[in-house]
Amino acid sequence: MMSAPNSESTSPSIQICRIMRPDDANIVGNVHGGTILKMIEEAGCIIGTRHCNTRSGDRCVAALARVERTDFLYPMFIGEVAHVSAEISYTSKHSVEVQVTVLSENILTGAKKVTNKATLWYVPFSLQNVDKITEVPPIEYSNPEQEELGKKRYEAQKLERMETKERNGEVIAAVSVPERHTKEPYTVGFSQSSLIHLIGPSDCTLHGFVHGGVTMKLMDEVAGIVAARHCKTNIVTASVDAINFHRKIKKGCVITVSGRMTFTSNKSMEIEVFVDADPLVEAEKGKYRAVTAFFTYISLDKENKSLPVPPLKLEGEEEQKRFEEGKARYLQSKAKRLAEKEQNQ
Amino acid sequence: MMSAPNSESTSPSIQICRIMRPDDANIVGNVHGGTILKMIEEAGCIIGTRHCNTRSGDRCVAALARVERTDFLYPMFIGEVAHVSAEISYTSKHSVEVQVTVLSENILTGAKKVTNKATLWYVPFSLQNVDKITEVPPIEYSNPEQEELGKKRYEAQKLERMETKERNGEVIAAVSVPERHTKEPYTVGFSQSSLIHLIGPSDCTLHGFVHGGVTMKLMDEVAGIVAARHCKTNIVTASVDAINFHRKIKKGCVITVSGRMTFTSNKSMEIEVFVDADPLVEAEKGKYRAVTAFFTYISLDKENKSLPVPPLKLEGEEEQKRFEEGKARYLQSKAKRLAEKEQNQ
Amino acid sequence: MMSAPNSESTSPSIQICRIMRPDDANIVGNVHGGTILKMIEEAGCIIGTRHCNTRSGDRCVAALARVERTDFLYPMFIGEVAHVSAEISYTSKHSVEVQVTVLSENILTGAKKVTNKATLWYVPFSLQNVDKITEVPPIEYSNPEQEELGKKRYEAQKLERMETKERNGEVIAAVSVPERHTKEPYTVGFSQSSLIHLIGPSDCTLHGFVHGGVTMKLMDEVAGIVAARHCKTNIVTASVDAINFHRKIKKGCVITVSGRMTFTSNKSMEIEVFVDADPLVEAEKGKYRAVTAFFTYISLDKENKSLPVPPLKLEGEEEQKRFEEGKARYLQSKAKRLAEKEQNQ
Repeated sequence: MMSAPNSESTSPSIQICRIMRPDDANIVGNVHGGTILKMIEEAGCIIGTRHCNTRSGDRCVAALARVERTDFLYPMFIGEVAHVSAEISYTSKHSVEVQVTVLSENILTGAKKVTNKATLWYVPFSLQNVDKITEVPPIEYSNPEQEELGKKRYEAQKLERMETKERNGEVIAAVSVPERHTKEPYTVGFSQSSLIHLIGPSDCTLHGFVHGGVTMKLMDEVAGIVAARHCKTNIVTASVDAINFHRKIKKGCVITVSGRMTFTSNKSMEIEVFVDADPLVEAEKGKYRAVTAFFTYISLDKENKSLPVPPLKLEGEEEQKRFEEGKARYLQSKAKRLAEKEQNQ
Repeated sequence: MMSAPNSESTSPSIQICRIMRPDDANIVGNVHGGTILKMIEEAGCIIGTRHCNTRSGDRCVAALARVERTDFLYPMFIGEVAHVSAEISYTSKHSVEVQVTVLSENILTGAKKVTNKATLWYVPFSLQNVDKITEVPPIEYSNPEQEELGKKRYEAQKLERMETKERNGEVIAAVSVPERHTKEPYTVGFSQSSLIHLIGPSDCTLHGFVHGGVTMKLMDEVAGIVAARHCKTNIVTASVDAINFHRKIKKGCVITVSGRMTFTSNKSMEIEVFVDADPLVEAEKGKYRAVTAFFTYISLDKENKSLPVPPLKLEGEEEQKRFEEGKARYLQSKAKRLAEKEQNQ
Repeated sequence: MMSAPNSESTSPSIQICRIMRPDDANIVGNVHGGTILKMIEEAGCIIGTRHCNTRSGDRCVAALARVERTDFLYPMFIGEVAHVSAEISYTSKHSVEVQVTVLSENILTGAKKVTNKATLWYVPFSLQNVDKITEVPPIEYSNPEQEELGKKRYEAQKLERMETKERNGEVIAAVSVPERHTKEPYTVGFSQSSLIHLIGPSDCTLHGFVHGGVTMKLMDEVAGIVAARHCKTNIVTASVDAINFHRKIKKGCVITVSGRMTFTSNKSMEIEVFVDADPLVEAEKGKYRAVTAFFTYISLDKENKSLPVPPLKLEGEEEQKRFEEGKARYLQSKAKRLAEKEQNQ
């Protein structure tokens, strides 16, 4: 992929690693995608915050604004060491692009695999005034071409964020959670799930706002339960579509994370996940939709080979429409993967 | 209360203590009732398991069968040390009664308060055969009267467990979780909440079954969110009605914990909580109701004085019926408290 | 200090880092010494296990055998990033010496400080046979002198471990935890504390044995409670004496961690901590003393300056004897610090 330019001497790169424990994984020992997303975001937050504070002036915290589409190339297991390395690859006036690579290491056999590559966008908020976005110190690029490519990525994601914001505006209506057990197997209603979580201090940055990684971990948890309820086998995260973080979520909020299946191909399931924040005490502010995303899951047998997925039974026009949209996303990303494969040959 | 008799030399009593951390408490610093319930159960499980293994024979683990009604006498705060001490007070052929006392200690001022007293019943299950209940070694009582009193408590709880089992049988229908935001404030539907949780390894005993304390912590979490949504102030657990654990919940299950408000007095709210277990992969076993309980919450101002609670708006006959039942429980426990007060004078 | 030699290409060095969260710190925001000890041990375990598996043969896990005396040079705070880097500095036939450096980074100001340096000894146990110690592949030294120095450190620690083992043998009698509240302030009995913890799956290595870091974190927690009870101010870990891990502790054990103050100087307190393991289910194996150590704490005011410590009130000959021994350790380490200081000038 692209190589990162030299950033300023004070904020070059960062490496996070830790041993995967039973609590990071499902019963079969596969590490949850959410565990990895959380580590990725922690690395991004450290390097982004560090970079944005390299100049004198207002102290600030880098808040996650967007994660580009991410593929989970190989499963990771309990006892392996996850290495997450992050570096800054582009800066605009008010945002920072961070490239992250995740490597799994089996310390018993020495085997290593790149399991993920991710691109995150951060925006710095002042510690004095939470609503003020501060300026980002520019990085140095090793050549003008690199800067040009970064600018293109910046423009592309900006456009997409705008579009999603509008779409989200429409979808303010919450997911209805009908009585699951009255539903037939393989319908959308049957596997639909939601959880609530009270945001505690350890979920938050110095601002008292939720770390993006915490939110992504909960989203993956719900998506995983939806997938498991649908196919009743061992399931793992295969990819996450671009996620936009439109509004911040504060300490003391209750968040509702809901997931519903939108599409199934022969060997994959797409699950749409919504995050709604409810500022319990400052209730005058009202509940709001904070994040939405699409997670793709696959089903694995005991040898970690992918299994066929039971097709989704659709009920009503809306579910049909969402299925078609999911299919379009599926075909688009499949075409993109093929194109990249050819390019690399 | 009653003093515990001398148990066998190997399993006399146990003390757990730990400092309360930010994640144990709400934003205002009040430790969650669920945190304390979980510690109480950990102490009970240790002393119960230790006692049941004092004789040679099958190794076993003590599983929580029932918790008697528990009052939270004073709030506990971050930075305080919670001391939980447990001792065995009665044994039947197949069950163990454990008495637990919780003390809060402010290690800076030295101030100490008894915050809870609880009574738990455990049943030992064989490690070889999860469905086999093993025999409990008898304890020695300091006098025959103590044994007699214990036997009475044993008979009383046995009766009640039978009754609840039957009642639960009827109520198999799950709580409907309607679209909250279409609901008017102060109605039952408005504050109704539920969460799902995938049972991980750290939630479980050596058997791979959920610790009763983990379940109680999640139940308290949901009840707390229902209470906060209703009155939008700082709320704390005031008491928990007797809880019966009818069926075990296994690692890998998804549990749905749902809460709805059933009754409000001037200064308290009663919330009914349901726990349903869904053995994802072994789906043929089907979803089942595992636990139900009533939690009572009060609302506090900034000086930790209790505030009036907005009355519950009832809709329909069922809600009216549940409100009347809640009122009966409220009046009964109020009468009991008064009686105990007089007795102590 | 000493610089580490080049180890084999496959196991060069490792860096762990993460942001310090509210639960890692006390109320004032000072990160617990135990949090840092746990991270140090995780880094050591990764690099040790990785190195011991660089040769084909039995797969093994490196288990912590000993931590050399460690000083906490500066306090760390919530929001800072802790960087822990580890490398192998010596190998004998059956053990690995790991050097660890901890750096705190304030990502807002860019300030960095070395907060700790630690030396750990690991022994590799076979995954097939838990009681079999495997052979350690040798590292390459950049010069013969380095190897010679390593050998001296190895011999010295070996001798000390033998001695402690014998001493431990005698002290099998557990700390009695008398009714603290009947004790006068500033006596040993007044601040004496203990906690118990049921070892869960996430506390353990692939073997099902407790990570040394988990044990050290609990030891620091108890020592901190003892120190806070004695002086009722904000306290932080100043140093930990050499810790020997004589016997492994298995999943499902209950451990009791007890602490008592042994010595006070003008500005420091020494606390002796015992870890006793109780294999609940396999009760025939009996309870045993697994680890002992001395922690030194200091008391800080609001500007993080050290405060005078109230002198310990001694009762009886034994306490007097322990106090004298503590004083000897105190004077010895003071003399050593001075000598090192002079050497560095």
